[in-house]
Amino acid sequence: MQKFISSFQNQAVKRILQLQEKSRARKKEHVFVVEGIREINLAIKGGYQVTELYYTSDLFPAEKAENLLSLISNPVDVTELSSEVYQKIAYRGSTEGVLAIVGSRELSLQNLTFKTKNPLILVAEAPEKPGNIGALLRTADAAAVDAVLIANPRTDMFNPNIIRSSVGCIFTNKIATGSTSEIIAFLKERKIAIFGAALQASVPYHSVDFTGGSAIVVGTEATGLSCEWLENTTQNIIIPMEGAIDSMNVSVAAGILIFEAKRQRR
Amino acid sequence: MQKFISSFQNQAVKRILQLQEKSRARKKEHVFVVEGIREINLAIKGGYQVTELYYTSDLFPAEKAENLLSLISNPVDVTELSSEVYQKIAYRGSTEGVLAIVGSRELSLQNLTFKTKNPLILVAEAPEKPGNIGALLRTADAAAVDAVLIANPRTDMFNPNIIRSSVGCIFTNKIATGSTSEIIAFLKERKIAIFGAALQASVPYHSVDFTGGSAIVVGTEATGLSCEWLENTTQNIIIPMEGAIDSMNVSVAAGILIFEAKRQRR
Repeated sequence: MQKFISSFQNQAVKRILQLQEKSRARKKEHVFVVEGIREINLAIKGGYQVTELYYTSDLFPAEKAENLLSLISNPVDVTELSSEVYQKIAYRGSTEGVLAIVGSRELSLQNLTFKTKNPLILVAEAPEKPGNIGALLRTADAAAVDAVLIANPRTDMFNPNIIRSSVGCIFTNKIATGSTSEIIAFLKERKIAIFGAALQASVPYHSVDFTGGSAIVVGTEATGLSCEWLENTTQNIIIPMEGAIDSMNVSVAAGILIFEAKRQRR
Repeated sequence: MQKFISSFQNQAVKRILQLQEKSRARKKEHVFVVEGIREINLAIKGGYQVTELYYTSDLFPAEKAENLLSLISNPVDVTELSSEVYQKIAYRGSTEGVLAIVGSRELSLQNLTFKTKNPLILVAEAPEKPGNIGALLRTADAAAVDAVLIANPRTDMFNPNIIRSSVGCIFTNKIATGSTSEIIAFLKERKIAIFGAALQASVPYHSVDFTGGSAIVVGTEATGLSCEWLENTTQNIIIPMEGAIDSMNVSVAAGILIFEAKRQRR
């Protein structure tokens, strides 16, 4: 039996708002919110479990909800919302009309395996904003890197701003998080070369060999990589900058480095 | 004699708000607003004329204002604002404490000259958001391209969001705007090869020769380049994408293409 909610006071509405806003709420329930048909499809494709679906028929007709459900093998709890309630709980209130509650995953290094002997890995240390992580994941997807590792993350990866800015690439990449120490140990154990984007003691990025197992490590725009990374790189690399401003958007820098590695590997 | 304004009703306050918000107001007066010490310094360095300075001494002490004024040769009208008034008129109300009124420039193709015979030019057609233009300008500055051309711009280039997102790179790049037809004619007259980022009839970007005079042309994330561009390119180029999502942030794509050109030219 399908439910319908039109009251802002409904407990389900309050719960979804909590899941959108609070990392703690997501962690407690081991679930998170995914908005948008493309993003939900990518989550399903990526093997994530959709357990609840909420939609408003003004924006998302019941047939579409049926189509979506046909892709999911487990039982799903479906609830229709008034458009007012939908707009209150959705980050993109007026555009999509559908959101799902999805089971989260342990993004641990221990679960990470590679199909290739010479993986290409993107590592980002403590990215400042969820939007930066989203942009990095989008670039990583385009390059089909073997994994994206987030060192010392400042937010959980199922933050709605990460999901949105990644346009669903959170589900298409292999992702793990860990402390800087854990990730360094992980890479060293596997004899993966560590290339840190840095200004100090570095060589031009296009002069190194990315054809072996390689991790490209980028820091924050404000302060770059921590000493712990810089002391543990195989080689520091630099994108030669010739402008008046000595900084670059972190996802642009990552794109330049990753695609140079891709070019060498072709 | 220095002025002090603490009233929201002051005409000067209303005027600055108009200049921030309305392209028409900027065009009428041939001026625009620049916030932040770094940005103002870059505007001065770039030869733009600062005519008025507004600051709030809570955030920006009078000595700093004196230092700034010492860099400017023409007379400048200086006004202190209460912190409440400053926060009302500034986009970044709580961070900088200083803004300038700066004379705008004709960013016309006719005024554009190159120091080199083989310029490297970035062209962006109708970028969707001011933030995208800012990000492109930042990348263009890092690569020290010879010019950035915006075809069919959707906003004037002195939009505060462009200035802010470019972190002042609006002043460090040579910039011109024009219609797509005008820019194509400009490039063809000068025998500059046109490389259009496109999915159709394209070759991998790293297989073309960027060492001659080259214009790298990017379209919007949503629809790519217009037919007019695609029919007039020397060669269409593609960044091979291997992911689930077939799109890339426009400034990341531009960064990858421009820095491949730079790599070839080293």
